[in-house]
Amino acid sequence: MKNQLYFDITLKEKAKAAFDAIYKEQNSIGYYNLVEQDISSILKYCDNISSDVKDIAVIGIGGSSLGAKAIYEFLKPVENLTRELYFFESTDPINIKNTLDSIDINKTHFLVISKSGTTVETFSIYKYILSKHANPSSYTFITDPGSDLEKYAQHIDASVLHLPENVGGRFSVLSVVGLVPLALCGIDIKALLQGAKSIKKSYFEHGYLQETLLKKSLFYAKNHAKYHINCIFAYSESLKYFCEWYVQLWGESLGKKQRHSAFNVGLTPIGLIGPKDQHSFLQLIMEGTRDKSVTFIKIDDFQEELCVIPDITLPHLESLDTLNNLAFSTLINMQCDSVIEALEKEEGIPLDSITLPKMDAHHIGSLIYYYELLTSLVGQLIDVNTYDQPGVEAAKIILKKKLAL
Amino acid sequence: MKNQLYFDITLKEKAKAAFDAIYKEQNSIGYYNLVEQDISSILKYCDNISSDVKDIAVIGIGGSSLGAKAIYEFLKPVENLTRELYFFESTDPINIKNTLDSIDINKTHFLVISKSGTTVETFSIYKYILSKHANPSSYTFITDPGSDLEKYAQHIDASVLHLPENVGGRFSVLSVVGLVPLALCGIDIKALLQGAKSIKKSYFEHGYLQETLLKKSLFYAKNHAKYHINCIFAYSESLKYFCEWYVQLWGESLGKKQRHSAFNVGLTPIGLIGPKDQHSFLQLIMEGTRDKSVTFIKIDDFQEELCVIPDITLPHLESLDTLNNLAFSTLINMQCDSVIEALEKEEGIPLDSITLPKMDAHHIGSLIYYYELLTSLVGQLIDVNTYDQPGVEAAKIILKKKLAL
Repeated sequence: MKNQLYFDITLKEKAKAAFDAIYKEQNSIGYYNLVEQDISSILKYCDNISSDVKDIAVIGIGGSSLGAKAIYEFLKPVENLTRELYFFESTDPINIKNTLDSIDINKTHFLVISKSGTTVETFSIYKYILSKHANPSSYTFITDPGSDLEKYAQHIDASVLHLPENVGGRFSVLSVVGLVPLALCGIDIKALLQGAKSIKKSYFEHGYLQETLLKKSLFYAKNHAKYHINCIFAYSESLKYFCEWYVQLWGESLGKKQRHSAFNVGLTPIGLIGPKDQHSFLQLIMEGTRDKSVTFIKIDDFQEELCVIPDITLPHLESLDTLNNLAFSTLINMQCDSVIEALEKEEGIPLDSITLPKMDAHHIGSLIYYYELLTSLVGQLIDVNTYDQPGVEAAKIILKKKLAL
Repeated sequence: MKNQLYFDITLKEKAKAAFDAIYKEQNSIGYYNLVEQDISSILKYCDNISSDVKDIAVIGIGGSSLGAKAIYEFLKPVENLTRELYFFESTDPINIKNTLDSIDINKTHFLVISKSGTTVETFSIYKYILSKHANPSSYTFITDPGSDLEKYAQHIDASVLHLPENVGGRFSVLSVVGLVPLALCGIDIKALLQGAKSIKKSYFEHGYLQETLLKKSLFYAKNHAKYHINCIFAYSESLKYFCEWYVQLWGESLGKKQRHSAFNVGLTPIGLIGPKDQHSFLQLIMEGTRDKSVTFIKIDDFQEELCVIPDITLPHLESLDTLNNLAFSTLINMQCDSVIEALEKEEGIPLDSITLPKMDAHHIGSLIYYYELLTSLVGQLIDVNTYDQPGVEAAKIILKKKLAL
């Protein structure tokens, strides 16, 4: 994975302090060390799931589903997976019905994922599915140790897996929360963690990413009032759900009250997919208010050599012959480069580009960990608690009152 | 369709002037009058497509695909459609291959949609598909009258349909661009247009929407520097692609240089889906910078009466019994109301809510036209040319140069 910045900033004491703070956070925030975890118990658990199980369904929302979905949707088109993965992540009745229609309920293993064990969405759906399929051996529960959900699972004699300590939902994809559903579909979770580990090593052990990540986070933090919208422009349809994961990670981590002031701050994440969004959002980036940074993500090798524009001349449309014999993978990257060049010429649009050599578990693992680290650094530099989400409680309390009526 | 504003603003001369300007625009901008078009020729064209055709595939990007996709994806889960609709809208080789694998190429009718007739994405994909399936009768071309694409289509003796005059891509969903693919799938395009017409009538003929739309657009325009991010928070998974259509409409129409100043202005659209994004973006709205307005969209009747949370008590999780016997459609709307109440208590977050009585062609037609009108009004009030997109040309020119090398 390469990351090229098109802007520069001098690293001084603030960056050094942020580096030190993040270094220390490794002792208290759990996600940093997930890359070193022993996955043998996860693999053993997965081996015990019957080969009669054809589909895996996650019942979970937010941090309990977005990460696994991002990785699954990235790898599904290019890997031979052993099972399909479905997500029940909405109380929309139409969506529940459609997802249920897509699976064979008798050949599905359900993963009920809830940190607290009392998520409204998760348990309303779980009860609904339970009423259609009551066999406890078809369910595994992933929750905090000692939660009421664990007690329930033990009561019905179903499997329980524990969330690791101090790992928040949106930073949990490389824990059991993401690894179990992904491994059950045949995704190489060892490679996933190794990809993440390579980023950790590069950042913490003075690799090339240390300076890059510090510069990028310092630039975003220092300019947070000016460039408060941070777009990812990914040139791969398979990164659509990665963008959704990024939106949660960035928005929920960085939008809050400062720790040492009365200010509300926040950086707004936007996920875009190229070239489609050249025909949608690009106009706003080019000519709108100068309040956006853009990070391009490119895939070097789509492993799709045979998808080439044929050598056909269309009468009256000969000008399109310049496309002939071009691989689509070359074209899509030329489109990305053209947009980068066009935006480079404009003032006040901070750009950088990330290139993934190929579409595999290793490299999506790298990308995930890169964004987790970046989020931690920016959070530190804009003085927020990156890991809490107090703002979502108010609506939950109101809903509880409504439900009790 | 109801629209309730949670903020107020006094309508003075600026609003009157905007109303008059939009009134006059009806003579020069084509989309306003699409609701009165005669659709008999479209229906006749559709009748002539063989019943052997099982799938419809749109080859088009941006305004040529987003509108039809929004409506199709909204109606597909609730209506018995006669054909499936697919979209080739990316040069991503993995995506092209997957979409091709989903259709039966010999039972598919392809709609090649390009206003200019030379869109790079559309024609690279068209050439690729043509090399696999060369029968001209399997293709219909939708383009501007007299374009080189029309000449080509005549040359190969394929069907051509014309885009109406003065209708830009992102305002074209209620023209042949959207109506033809939708009608071919069995969607009631007459109801769609009638829904749109009811909004037009209400706005132009002093219905309840006149004051509401003027107030909302004036508020957005006057406060564009403060509230420059406009979120839709839709409580229906089926509105996901409507949000993508909105992002193009809003971003590409409103992000540009002012007509009478040297300023770059722009309002940034964001599409959110509830309750999922309560676990993602809500924290940023609640506690982040006060730069966002939020429009909630609710479905009154999901027509899914039977989807009820069963009366099950889970040992150790008895607190969740308050969910029992609740219809999911009630729950999702309670969740929406809870978030509205929570945000209402915060200062500096302008809110409004739109309620669609049910999920049908009439009401999605209403919603589409409502947003088109709102966009026109805001564009007028922030002094931009709502209907051009000069900012997307630079990257196209650079790409052309790269291709010619």
